[in-house]
Amino acid sequence: MEIQKLAHAAKEASHDLAASSTELKNRALKEIASDLNSRRKEVIDANRRDLEESAQNNLAAPLMKRLKFDDSKIDDVIAGIESLISLPDPVGTTLSATELDRGLELYRVSCPIGVIGVIFESRPDALVQISTLCLKSGNAVMLKGGSEAHNTNRVLAEIISGASEHAGIPSGWIQLLETRADVQEMLKLDTFIDLIIPRGSNEFVRYIMDNSNISVLGHADGICHVYVDRDADTPMAVSITVDSKCQYVAVCNAAETLLVHEDVAGQFLPAAAAELKKNNVEIRGCEKTAAIIDVIPATEEDWKTEYLDYIISVKIVTSLDDAVRHINTYGSGHTETIVTANNDAAERFISLVDAGDVFWNCSTRFSDGYRYGLGAEVGISTNKIHARGPVGLEGLLIYKWIIKGSGQIVADYAAGTRKFTHRKLDTKFTV
Amino acid sequence: MEIQKLAHAAKEASHDLAASSTELKNRALKEIASDLNSRRKEVIDANRRDLEESAQNNLAAPLMKRLKFDDSKIDDVIAGIESLISLPDPVGTTLSATELDRGLELYRVSCPIGVIGVIFESRPDALVQISTLCLKSGNAVMLKGGSEAHNTNRVLAEIISGASEHAGIPSGWIQLLETRADVQEMLKLDTFIDLIIPRGSNEFVRYIMDNSNISVLGHADGICHVYVDRDADTPMAVSITVDSKCQYVAVCNAAETLLVHEDVAGQFLPAAAAELKKNNVEIRGCEKTAAIIDVIPATEEDWKTEYLDYIISVKIVTSLDDAVRHINTYGSGHTETIVTANNDAAERFISLVDAGDVFWNCSTRFSDGYRYGLGAEVGISTNKIHARGPVGLEGLLIYKWIIKGSGQIVADYAAGTRKFTHRKLDTKFTV
Repeated sequence: MEIQKLAHAAKEASHDLAASSTELKNRALKEIASDLNSRRKEVIDANRRDLEESAQNNLAAPLMKRLKFDDSKIDDVIAGIESLISLPDPVGTTLSATELDRGLELYRVSCPIGVIGVIFESRPDALVQISTLCLKSGNAVMLKGGSEAHNTNRVLAEIISGASEHAGIPSGWIQLLETRADVQEMLKLDTFIDLIIPRGSNEFVRYIMDNSNISVLGHADGICHVYVDRDADTPMAVSITVDSKCQYVAVCNAAETLLVHEDVAGQFLPAAAAELKKNNVEIRGCEKTAAIIDVIPATEEDWKTEYLDYIISVKIVTSLDDAVRHINTYGSGHTETIVTANNDAAERFISLVDAGDVFWNCSTRFSDGYRYGLGAEVGISTNKIHARGPVGLEGLLIYKWIIKGSGQIVADYAAGTRKFTHRKLDTKFTV
Repeated sequence: MEIQKLAHAAKEASHDLAASSTELKNRALKEIASDLNSRRKEVIDANRRDLEESAQNNLAAPLMKRLKFDDSKIDDVIAGIESLISLPDPVGTTLSATELDRGLELYRVSCPIGVIGVIFESRPDALVQISTLCLKSGNAVMLKGGSEAHNTNRVLAEIISGASEHAGIPSGWIQLLETRADVQEMLKLDTFIDLIIPRGSNEFVRYIMDNSNISVLGHADGICHVYVDRDADTPMAVSITVDSKCQYVAVCNAAETLLVHEDVAGQFLPAAAAELKKNNVEIRGCEKTAAIIDVIPATEEDWKTEYLDYIISVKIVTSLDDAVRHINTYGSGHTETIVTANNDAAERFISLVDAGDVFWNCSTRFSDGYRYGLGAEVGISTNKIHARGPVGLEGLLIYKWIIKGSGQIVADYAAGTRKFTHRKLDTKFTV
């Protein structure tokens, strides 16, 4: 019930926020940056309490590192806000304009989605990034961060709501949830919340997807493949395989399975195996692979597994189409790459593979909002609708159809006394 | 299990269909049109059996009319296919292009969604329209039509699959479901089906939305409002009110509630009531309305009701913001219109009202794909993501991110030995 009230308040605020001017939103972002700077001691003190509690609870070292929010992290999020201020306002863009008849003009204009629910990992910087992205795009937001960071998150949310509301943004646009039970409640509130963005483990994201009627933007698995075609350059294929697997193993766009055309397996696999072993990668291979290099036997389960670790599965395929079939069966629609010098093979791979990101002669690790130049990133989506692959600000937008008329009624067009012109306009919407 | 096999076949076909050339798809559409023409006797005979069965089952006259599929209807769907052939292929459009670095280019290119499940009403023409729209946009489709039309639908689906597969479209791209149990099965198949488009009654659409993990595109309610502002021209407001309510009462974009600014209620309401009564509209009003004109008292339930009939509810509001609040509370996000001569009022209404279609000085009845000039219409969506309002072909598309590289790996950029250029390109993607 409590959460329903918060969601209702967010929904109410979202309407005024959607109508807020660029100037007001940017002024609010400036005040947030300024207050984060002047109140950094409070933030760091709260974070110290979180770090102490987590140390007592024996939180793993990598998570402790992500939880830490010090002066340099505060400088980073402030720099992020400055760059967000300099971006154009994504709201109010005229996407199309059509004259339906004299004095009857149709416009499609970008607008915020409404209320976004975001569930994110233990990094407190995520709270600042997500909430300021929502503010810039005119969306209200309900946030649930990692429980280890609850003291830090509480101070950050308080600073952001205080500063933005002081600047004139409607109160209630940012809401902080604190428990798992809060999240459970949130998942039911489809009348108030328009989109859920869950960031975290496969199991967690899948749970959210299976337990809410609200649309979900994100990805559960990241089972990405490197396909080494018959016409691949061997050194390039080895380099791309090693980077895709090893450059950062714990992320969704790291490769988990290597597919190799049978005609080049004899040449490519020993070279690749040597480099992978230098990086301490365990290789699990199909029977044909085992006939060429020394591997642990792969099982059906391996093709379905996102290792997120120094492990790779290898399968020899008989053709490009065989590789595509494997990818479309076992892949998660995230990132797939082909290494080939053959344009026709590349074209066929690109058009047949069903994934958000399909690459030719580069590492799978490039699928990322920063590398794509999208500026801020909301997340990576394996959805088939709305937004796919790395999602920037535009993933937080939808559009309205607006008609400016002068008293027209449909009866006149039905009777044939008036006719539609359907003429493309290149004007922007203004009243 | 049977339905799962059909869905699996559709998914398999969808990958090849996505890669099919414009020429092949248009050739298939031509063959479909040609076979519909040459096999029209079979279609009409099957339809006669449906009409006879339905007459025995005492199907209501308006439904009998929708079910009837005669020579003139066949001519219409053939004309629809001809115009679809002449539309540009929506697949393969480069939506953005960025140079990430020398020889590393990122493209965002439109592509089909995959497999679309469509559940539609008793009109057999819908089967032809929907399946050919899916074919043109490169999507496989699973169709379930009204059971009254089962003989007609079977022949139509057989003609469409036969003609298209003869032209070279992969077999299995179109699947016909025949029972409600089939639909229940389909709703569970989120690994094969990417989007469900349900057309039909509120209860039915809401049932689909509540019982599937698959994304749903459509609308349940259509609770649309006409708001007569303080600065409205009375004759224009009366005309728009009557058209919005009466031009076709049984459709989702007909107005159900009239909101009137208190300052003009005394002048506007008697004039509007006189015209509405000429059209036999029952008026249910709030207490303030009842003080001005003769009405049946409205209850809270009236604000939430889509009458789809000659009934309108009337509420007097104290301000534009009061009207907006009512709309954002009770509206279904479909179509809302303001009648006003005041630009500031129009601007505020348009930016604050949360709906797919927001109009100024025209009838709510304009929200329709044909009237918008979208060509073919998939449906009308009250979703907050992907597509909103009348949805044309573009609602059946998503995009892929494609990178053309020359061996690049992320490690070089992480080490700083290479830098991203992020330069906008105006080139189209080609291999």
